[in-house]
Amino acid sequence: MKRKVGRGAFFCTFPDMAKEKLVKSITSMEEDFAKWYTDVVLKADLIDYSSVKGCMIIRPYGYAVWENIQRIVDGMFKETGHENVYMPMFIPESLLQKEKDHIAGFAPEVAWVTHGGDEELEERLCVRPTSETLFCDHFKNIVHSYRDLPKLYNQWCSVVRWEKTTRPFLRSREFLWQEGHTLHATAEEAKAETVQMLNIYAKFAEEYLAIPVIKGEKTEKERFAGAEATYTIEALMHDGKALQSGTSHYFGDGFARAFGIEYTDKNNSPATPFETSWGISTRLIGAIIMAHGDDSGLVLPPAIAPIQAVPIASHKEGVLEKAREVYGRISRVCRAKIDEGEQSPGWKFAEYEMKGVPVRIELGPKDIEANSCVIVRRDNGEKITVSLDALEEKIPEILTAVRDGLYNKALERRSAMTYDAHNLDELKEIADTKPGFIRAMWCGDRECEEKLKEYAGVTSRCIPFEQERIGDKCVCCGKPADKMLYWGKAY
Amino acid sequence: MKRKVGRGAFFCTFPDMAKEKLVKSITSMEEDFAKWYTDVVLKADLIDYSSVKGCMIIRPYGYAVWENIQRIVDGMFKETGHENVYMPMFIPESLLQKEKDHIAGFAPEVAWVTHGGDEELEERLCVRPTSETLFCDHFKNIVHSYRDLPKLYNQWCSVVRWEKTTRPFLRSREFLWQEGHTLHATAEEAKAETVQMLNIYAKFAEEYLAIPVIKGEKTEKERFAGAEATYTIEALMHDGKALQSGTSHYFGDGFARAFGIEYTDKNNSPATPFETSWGISTRLIGAIIMAHGDDSGLVLPPAIAPIQAVPIASHKEGVLEKAREVYGRISRVCRAKIDEGEQSPGWKFAEYEMKGVPVRIELGPKDIEANSCVIVRRDNGEKITVSLDALEEKIPEILTAVRDGLYNKALERRSAMTYDAHNLDELKEIADTKPGFIRAMWCGDRECEEKLKEYAGVTSRCIPFEQERIGDKCVCCGKPADKMLYWGKAY
Repeated sequence: MKRKVGRGAFFCTFPDMAKEKLVKSITSMEEDFAKWYTDVVLKADLIDYSSVKGCMIIRPYGYAVWENIQRIVDGMFKETGHENVYMPMFIPESLLQKEKDHIAGFAPEVAWVTHGGDEELEERLCVRPTSETLFCDHFKNIVHSYRDLPKLYNQWCSVVRWEKTTRPFLRSREFLWQEGHTLHATAEEAKAETVQMLNIYAKFAEEYLAIPVIKGEKTEKERFAGAEATYTIEALMHDGKALQSGTSHYFGDGFARAFGIEYTDKNNSPATPFETSWGISTRLIGAIIMAHGDDSGLVLPPAIAPIQAVPIASHKEGVLEKAREVYGRISRVCRAKIDEGEQSPGWKFAEYEMKGVPVRIELGPKDIEANSCVIVRRDNGEKITVSLDALEEKIPEILTAVRDGLYNKALERRSAMTYDAHNLDELKEIADTKPGFIRAMWCGDRECEEKLKEYAGVTSRCIPFEQERIGDKCVCCGKPADKMLYWGKAY
Repeated sequence: MKRKVGRGAFFCTFPDMAKEKLVKSITSMEEDFAKWYTDVVLKADLIDYSSVKGCMIIRPYGYAVWENIQRIVDGMFKETGHENVYMPMFIPESLLQKEKDHIAGFAPEVAWVTHGGDEELEERLCVRPTSETLFCDHFKNIVHSYRDLPKLYNQWCSVVRWEKTTRPFLRSREFLWQEGHTLHATAEEAKAETVQMLNIYAKFAEEYLAIPVIKGEKTEKERFAGAEATYTIEALMHDGKALQSGTSHYFGDGFARAFGIEYTDKNNSPATPFETSWGISTRLIGAIIMAHGDDSGLVLPPAIAPIQAVPIASHKEGVLEKAREVYGRISRVCRAKIDEGEQSPGWKFAEYEMKGVPVRIELGPKDIEANSCVIVRRDNGEKITVSLDALEEKIPEILTAVRDGLYNKALERRSAMTYDAHNLDELKEIADTKPGFIRAMWCGDRECEEKLKEYAGVTSRCIPFEQERIGDKCVCCGKPADKMLYWGKAY
């Protein structure tokens, strides 16, 4: 199967490539964004569909992206004093019911285990959709004194939510995630933790995934079931839709009271602790695809790319040997791969473009004669002639440039796709004609929030931490308003 | 709560410690081995019990051991060309039934999901007890040509088996493991893979966990459901019981045929591939506890110890500062921890003995004056006076010595607890009076194997690769026999 070759493929080193019939095999973004997305996840070998409706198989290339995400984020968690644990995957129905807002939020979408072997269970168990209840039950056992606080726990696992409509990475019945659960002596400490973890998510999204995000608080309507406050990072995708990319919740002492968690404070008095939880998931892989991808396929930020650089050589004598030497050398400074397959260089260009490899290194007989190679950036197609002697020094520099290029492009796109609305008609017109974020003032009434959804099809994304007063009246009802919100259509 | 202080605690640096009333808080091995085991898993903070019967909570210290196991083993898998993937946790009933021996083996012990939210599912789903069926289903989709082979996949996940009686790490309804699943063009290649992976498990057990193992093949009776051959590593615990610590299965083309996996070979003919699977689990933590532990608690092999060295200082002036300096320096050569808690050095000695930390570094005013410290080995209590200038050099040496010490002690114990039996009465007497492995010749008849279990309460552990002909007649029926087997009572 031949694929479209992206910009930069017709490099003079391989003049014969122009003769190849290069057929584009993925739908273009413009033609059908949803189809483009599905084509990319399948053709870049990220996933396969399984026999279980709504559950995906994460293939080696997709899982390697997740492993890189895990490694980096896990390091950030450990640096801030968090420890990993593992809780059971089942929650007894009675335990799930202890916090009433929580059960109301999750009951409609959980999978129930009713039988073990041939026997019906006395009490049915749900497969965890999230583990607040399990952590609370455990905290009750192990927290007795102020000396036992804080507890800063995290868990890497899979969770299940019985969604009706599903899409790979974005919404699947089972997905992989991490869920942090912490317990603190004071509300202030718990609130600081909630914000600290949101900042870690934002730093990870921006520095490592090269995805700019809006940090803010969710409205009451959009809060996590049982939370007193939910913070979020919101990213903008290529098609102008928002993607909630990480959330952090402050629970106050609600869960602790519901579960009877109590400790003896420094004054020897009984006290109730305060709780948080926070999570990111394989959904981030969907964000990477839709924030950076193009019509040639995936574009991966270098920090999480399973392959950061791939030398591609022609089949001429002596060239493969040089490519092996180059591969050996760059392997010391980045994650490299060499592909000695029998396919043409043109096929390989397309293959590694589809897989989003940040840089490819083109090597032909003339390059070798000149003791140089051509490095092609996946993000913008730029070609850089580099002396073979300078490879180890240049590759990391170029990978950094790719990250910066991706980030700036995404930031510019977001700026260009962010609109201010001052009244309902204006908002409706933007929502109907211009994909992207809409900034608008809001009075704080849930009624107005619901009306905007009904009338213009947008939901509140967040109340950003960085406020800008773009008016003083609610975009919906016209009453005084002092909060600027981001609104949009969302995944 | 005070704990018993192990050998080496009454070091002259802390003469006042002798005055402390040191109360032993765990049951001794000799008194009640099962209770000793439970005391260790709880007191060393490895697990907590959960509200879900038979499912454990793996606490930070226990999970850190598992993370170290994962990191090392995952590296060994990747070095041998394996890639990680993630399959759904659910298996539709019809898929589980495709290979008839397999379903017969697992159906009695699976958990069934019957409802998603409020709706009853059209087909019930089991929570994976193992994933051969899911991998086969996927292989059928992605393997078409000889170019697609081999597939060398591994998955880290949790699995569920609805056991009646459970014990932490050894047998729980949910446990963590890795399961490798590979597909090959030829039977020879698949067989070689099966043996390669067993060898990796043996190397890991012996070099990293310091647990000597017997490598061999299971009898037909003890094979994995659906396998043509099952290989195992068997370890001997302190109480003389065997623990199956890792298995590797060769499936021939049975699963591939049952699932209709077919590819086009080099001659353009249709062909059926050959399959393997192999796994180790959190059971290994049970093996570590019961192979190395003692009456002071856990004893961890350095390679997987979350804390490899802990400096413990008296509360005298200037000593804590020095301990911090020592901690900073040794952190560069090992995983170290400093505990600045208000408890006495004696309490800390007991605490880190309970947690199995391989070496502790004792620091008192006199040591500092002499520019030295005393390093105490957890495995044998040996005290080594070391110049503070030589710490970075000495710590890694001593950690290696601890590993070697543990391995040799376990090997000697196994030798001393391995007995040869030449006839049924002799075997019965050994089984009744001497805990350990029994070596005996076997004719190959399943009937004899069953009789040994019924009459002497032992099961066949394996037919070791390293054969030694200790007779020429079957220990049971007296007929000619050319296979020597290990027999024993097992977890």
